[in-house]
Amino acid sequence: MFASRLDLLLIFIPVAVALDVLKADALLVFGASALAIIPLAGLLGRATEHLTCHVGAGIGSLLNASLGNAAELIIALVALREGLHDVVKASLTGSIIGNVLLVLGASMIAGGMKYERQRFNQTAAGLGSSLLVLAAVGLIIPALFHFTAADRGVRIEHELSLLISVVLFVIYCLSLAFSLKTHRHVFAGGSHDAGDLGGRPWSYRLSLGVLTAVAILIGVMSEVLVGAIEPAAHQLGLTQVFVGVILVALVGNAAEHSSAVLMAMKNKMDLALGIAVGSSMQIALFVAPVLVFASYAIGGHPLDLIFTPFEVAAVTMSVLILGFVSMDGESHWMEGVMLLGVYAMLAVAFYFLPA
Amino acid sequence: MFASRLDLLLIFIPVAVALDVLKADALLVFGASALAIIPLAGLLGRATEHLTCHVGAGIGSLLNASLGNAAELIIALVALREGLHDVVKASLTGSIIGNVLLVLGASMIAGGMKYERQRFNQTAAGLGSSLLVLAAVGLIIPALFHFTAADRGVRIEHELSLLISVVLFVIYCLSLAFSLKTHRHVFAGGSHDAGDLGGRPWSYRLSLGVLTAVAILIGVMSEVLVGAIEPAAHQLGLTQVFVGVILVALVGNAAEHSSAVLMAMKNKMDLALGIAVGSSMQIALFVAPVLVFASYAIGGHPLDLIFTPFEVAAVTMSVLILGFVSMDGESHWMEGVMLLGVYAMLAVAFYFLPA
Amino acid sequence: MFASRLDLLLIFIPVAVALDVLKADALLVFGASALAIIPLAGLLGRATEHLTCHVGAGIGSLLNASLGNAAELIIALVALREGLHDVVKASLTGSIIGNVLLVLGASMIAGGMKYERQRFNQTAAGLGSSLLVLAAVGLIIPALFHFTAADRGVRIEHELSLLISVVLFVIYCLSLAFSLKTHRHVFAGGSHDAGDLGGRPWSYRLSLGVLTAVAILIGVMSEVLVGAIEPAAHQLGLTQVFVGVILVALVGNAAEHSSAVLMAMKNKMDLALGIAVGSSMQIALFVAPVLVFASYAIGGHPLDLIFTPFEVAAVTMSVLILGFVSMDGESHWMEGVMLLGVYAMLAVAFYFLPA
Repeated sequence: MFASRLDLLLIFIPVAVALDVLKADALLVFGASALAIIPLAGLLGRATEHLTCHVGAGIGSLLNASLGNAAELIIALVALREGLHDVVKASLTGSIIGNVLLVLGASMIAGGMKYERQRFNQTAAGLGSSLLVLAAVGLIIPALFHFTAADRGVRIEHELSLLISVVLFVIYCLSLAFSLKTHRHVFAGGSHDAGDLGGRPWSYRLSLGVLTAVAILIGVMSEVLVGAIEPAAHQLGLTQVFVGVILVALVGNAAEHSSAVLMAMKNKMDLALGIAVGSSMQIALFVAPVLVFASYAIGGHPLDLIFTPFEVAAVTMSVLILGFVSMDGESHWMEGVMLLGVYAMLAVAFYFLPA
Repeated sequence: MFASRLDLLLIFIPVAVALDVLKADALLVFGASALAIIPLAGLLGRATEHLTCHVGAGIGSLLNASLGNAAELIIALVALREGLHDVVKASLTGSIIGNVLLVLGASMIAGGMKYERQRFNQTAAGLGSSLLVLAAVGLIIPALFHFTAADRGVRIEHELSLLISVVLFVIYCLSLAFSLKTHRHVFAGGSHDAGDLGGRPWSYRLSLGVLTAVAILIGVMSEVLVGAIEPAAHQLGLTQVFVGVILVALVGNAAEHSSAVLMAMKNKMDLALGIAVGSSMQIALFVAPVLVFASYAIGGHPLDLIFTPFEVAAVTMSVLILGFVSMDGESHWMEGVMLLGVYAMLAVAFYFLPA
Repeated sequence: MFASRLDLLLIFIPVAVALDVLKADALLVFGASALAIIPLAGLLGRATEHLTCHVGAGIGSLLNASLGNAAELIIALVALREGLHDVVKASLTGSIIGNVLLVLGASMIAGGMKYERQRFNQTAAGLGSSLLVLAAVGLIIPALFHFTAADRGVRIEHELSLLISVVLFVIYCLSLAFSLKTHRHVFAGGSHDAGDLGGRPWSYRLSLGVLTAVAILIGVMSEVLVGAIEPAAHQLGLTQVFVGVILVALVGNAAEHSSAVLMAMKNKMDLALGIAVGSSMQIALFVAPVLVFASYAIGGHPLDLIFTPFEVAAVTMSVLILGFVSMDGESHWMEGVMLLGVYAMLAVAFYFLPA
């Protein structure tokens, strides 16, 4: 129901294209393409899930896990090709903190309005938090290296980023083996229930077709969006980093946002947490390394993992507050307020940061 | 009983005034006014509690929560009016780490001497720890901004501090709604039992009168104390920051200290933890923002939230060790030793820090 | 059985001496002496345990605790006497992170291959983690002081390091009183069971003799090893810090490594955790302060506790990930993978760091 309301935003696809062709105001182009991507990201998620039903649990879960953040990946790839490395890294940061703080915070408040306490599976939450600590370590190391050993030169820094990407990617693959294979039962119930959300009987070929079409549309819309970032940011008096951390990340996470909030309101806090923390974790351990690898394939200046001190601090603080909040296996509205409070303070700081 | 022993220190009120009028040695003036504030802070707490009985549970709890650190607030306001911003911030830092490390550490040791293990309510402890992590985030952001984007200028830094103060204050208000209203039962027992401590049947008007009189006396003594900080620090060969972090904070926290230790010795670890962590949390989320707002009302240079790297690190480390120590819902004397150990190491460092 | 296989490496004692006397290639000397120390460290541990049986539980446990990292202590003392302060500090860092990440990570994987989940005593694990946070605080303070108040001069920094060493050492002694005396039963079973490992009936005098002989041999081998560090590092194109953090630490921890992995495979995760975390904690709270004290006894430039930013960050991150991973009182292979992942990322960074 909610999903179909979001689908009304699909009207912005032709609007964005028309505005872009007519060389309209960059702000309008940015807004329209952003609004168009929101339902596309949702559709992509649903198409993946339906495809999942046709290929068996094993490959299905794998597909689901890998395509879960396909929209973010496509946007970032387009920005990467345009050489906007700062925007790429800012959108990664924004996706990680957005999921942990904004999506989870809103879910805990929405759920906490109806239920005094909501319990969730501590093993799954603990694994997610620990993997995010690992991801934070993966961001801290290159940044600290950059600030204490900058004289080693850019080449060494790129090698370090590449090796850390390999470690993060290997750990991501092993975490899939863990959650989809050896310890599947611990996470049971999750992926099945998620299928409830807007489920309609699609055939296998239709799913595959929809998936491909939606991915192409997201790609096209991302081109329009990325092309409008610089002039739109300029017009709004915002830095590109702020646009990447807050606005682009909001667009990419909108689908997760609505699903997680819906799950929390149905008292399925496990699923809400799984969506928010799982998505953050996937951005850090899968999307970020894949972008680094892709930058070598694309050629030109390779992408490094040297985030700004503020980005590193934002991710580290988000991960720590998540650990404190999820430690007890319970949530209530005040925990949601705290997560949103940290998000608000970080957003204010990113707003004031110079370009 | 213990409270009345502390009351003997009230004799230092006239002593401090006399010494100040006679322009005696700054060290004597500092010592006498410090000793005079200790019983006054205790009296203020008891007067608030007795007033509480007359106004109904709702407003009573609110009063209790807001006036809990009134002594610290008054001292800081006096220092703020004198333009001693470094002393104000140092005393905030000192109150936060003093409560978490010194007061709680001493309570755990005192309680641990009599009881092998003491259990406490994990939900309440978890909320307090999480709110302190949030407060630490609120201190880290302006400091990091200052060190990475100092070129944005003082005006932007003040705006950032003000906005973060607003976020912290809103979260404080919401945490009151949480603990006094929607989830009151989780914290039940706490405020009622605390009334045992030195309870005498006072009438409503008497309570109100005592409250006002004590507040005025604290104000007067704070004037004397703050006026003596600089010459006394100079005489002792100490920096004003050390005096603020260690000595002034000790004076402001003495009442909490004795109550928390007493509670721990009665095996009411929940209350001891509530006093120590609650007081720290209140300093960070209520007193600090109120001082920032007050600095705008007073006029002159507004107060910012840019603490020194050492202050930020001290608060962050205290909060993290509190998280580790309170995680299991149990305490023993060794956990108290660890908290005191961290306090000792920080005190040594603040002692050696240059002005 | 496994212990006796390691004992075959004892053949490298005469080999190392011969190579050293013949002024052979530094790399061969380094390798041979490193291989010789591995079984000696194991022997020292077993000799200590057997001695323990003859002196009564109290002094025995004390002996065990103090001599547990005797090999590391001897190597570091030799390096200290040679004035290789950076190598000493690097080997301390390497021992702390090596035990927490490599030894514990390998144990969790080895145990997790056979058992789906392994439970451990949360009180003991929590105490170890908290003591390691304390140790991290003890490393952060001097480093932060060095970076923010370097103008205070070297003398003040040495005083600060000395005072922090005293605090850490006192806390170590109190933690022994806690675990061996007042709360012995919480840790019960541990030290007794550990005696299984390769236990043969030795007499008291023999134990004492073996202990002394082994300590002397480790001393001799350490001289050879330390003498070869610089030329060997040069030949391998490695920095002395990398050799200290990764290679020397590996040699010193090899005995703990094999015992912990064996215990984990026998599903005695409590013991594995106790060995790994206990050893890290002992390095930080006992070996490090003793080395600082010893540097004053030896004369010359005293040892300080100012570790490099990367070393401080490495220890802090290791301790935090340990907290997240041990929080739930359970382990599985994926937690082991995460610990090894952090170790791999840190090792890569130390490899690239300039001298």
